[in-house]
Amino acid sequence: MTTTETTLRNGVDRAQLFGTLDAIKADPTLARFQFRARNRWLGGAHNRTWIRDFFAANQEDTSRADEFVVDAGEPAILLGTDTGPNPAEYLLHALAACLTTSIVYVAAARGVELTEVESTLEGDMDVQGALGLSEEHRNGFERIRVSFRIAGDAPEEKLREVVDRAQQRSAVFDMVTNGVPVSVGVETT
Amino acid sequence: MTTTETTLRNGVDRAQLFGTLDAIKADPTLARFQFRARNRWLGGAHNRTWIRDFFAANQEDTSRADEFVVDAGEPAILLGTDTGPNPAEYLLHALAACLTTSIVYVAAARGVELTEVESTLEGDMDVQGALGLSEEHRNGFERIRVSFRIAGDAPEEKLREVVDRAQQRSAVFDMVTNGVPVSVGVETT
Repeated sequence: MTTTETTLRNGVDRAQLFGTLDAIKADPTLARFQFRARNRWLGGAHNRTWIRDFFAANQEDTSRADEFVVDAGEPAILLGTDTGPNPAEYLLHALAACLTTSIVYVAAARGVELTEVESTLEGDMDVQGALGLSEEHRNGFERIRVSFRIAGDAPEEKLREVVDRAQQRSAVFDMVTNGVPVSVGVETT
Repeated sequence: MTTTETTLRNGVDRAQLFGTLDAIKADPTLARFQFRARNRWLGGAHNRTWIRDFFAANQEDTSRADEFVVDAGEPAILLGTDTGPNPAEYLLHALAACLTTSIVYVAAARGVELTEVESTLEGDMDVQGALGLSEEHRNGFERIRVSFRIAGDAPEEKLREVVDRAQQRSAVFDMVTNGVPVSVGVETT
């Protein structure tokens, strides 16, 4: 028996996790976040997003040392030159990343040690919609299929519960399945 | 007067653009696409997505020379180590990128030469939802604001029409505002 015990589980600091939950319970205003992105067109299907600052816990967060830079593009068949994944593929990435992190955090909270979380995603789209050729097809994916492979030190039933709970709490899963109101403003110069 | 004329507008090949539309009108089965992503957890809030192959125009597309690799993470306040933008920020990026490319393509089709397309995006979230602390808050953004700055060789009214049309046809705008059915399968090993 030892009085020191690591609080890390799946690379997540459980002490910090439960401390964060307690702090927000004590002062719910800490839970207000705003995330941001700036994008600039670079020619053709090539555009770039810069991501750094955000608002959290009643202040501007200044913890990030560097700005993230991510490039988007389109493949040749969609008139681009592969300057990056295309926007719909980035949406699949956002969904995979959020479900995965949710699984890892839920598992950490429940004391489940994971050894593997992998996923494949497929999105089906008829581009007649986005190209304005048919009103019978929507612009985006008709459906998305996510397939997880997960392993850890818990029985199958508990691992499935972790995935279920993560799906119920994932920010991007909520947005992609339920939609979000988006306002678009335009300034011409 | 010359018999050769560039078909490039905004870096988009108008001849290819109209050729693609004609080909799909002649054979709508060419419009069936499937995009994909593979993701793997790397520890804590760090996970990585690989993107390359997709299905289009009745065959597997093999035009991409390299696989795209994109990393996700979380900032310190959300228990990560900034191994990449977080999933909700990637969703903002996907939305910005898709609206921007849609604006550029619509402008190209209408013969509008653009000189600038920039955008800033903000998403508001109360993390009590995603943390499971309150049923009064959804998991994802409550709303997203997009602000475009656009310049080109057309009058303001025409530039605004281009943005309106792009918004009506953007794949990711459709998905983020209207939602998509997502199925999640789990295999435990």
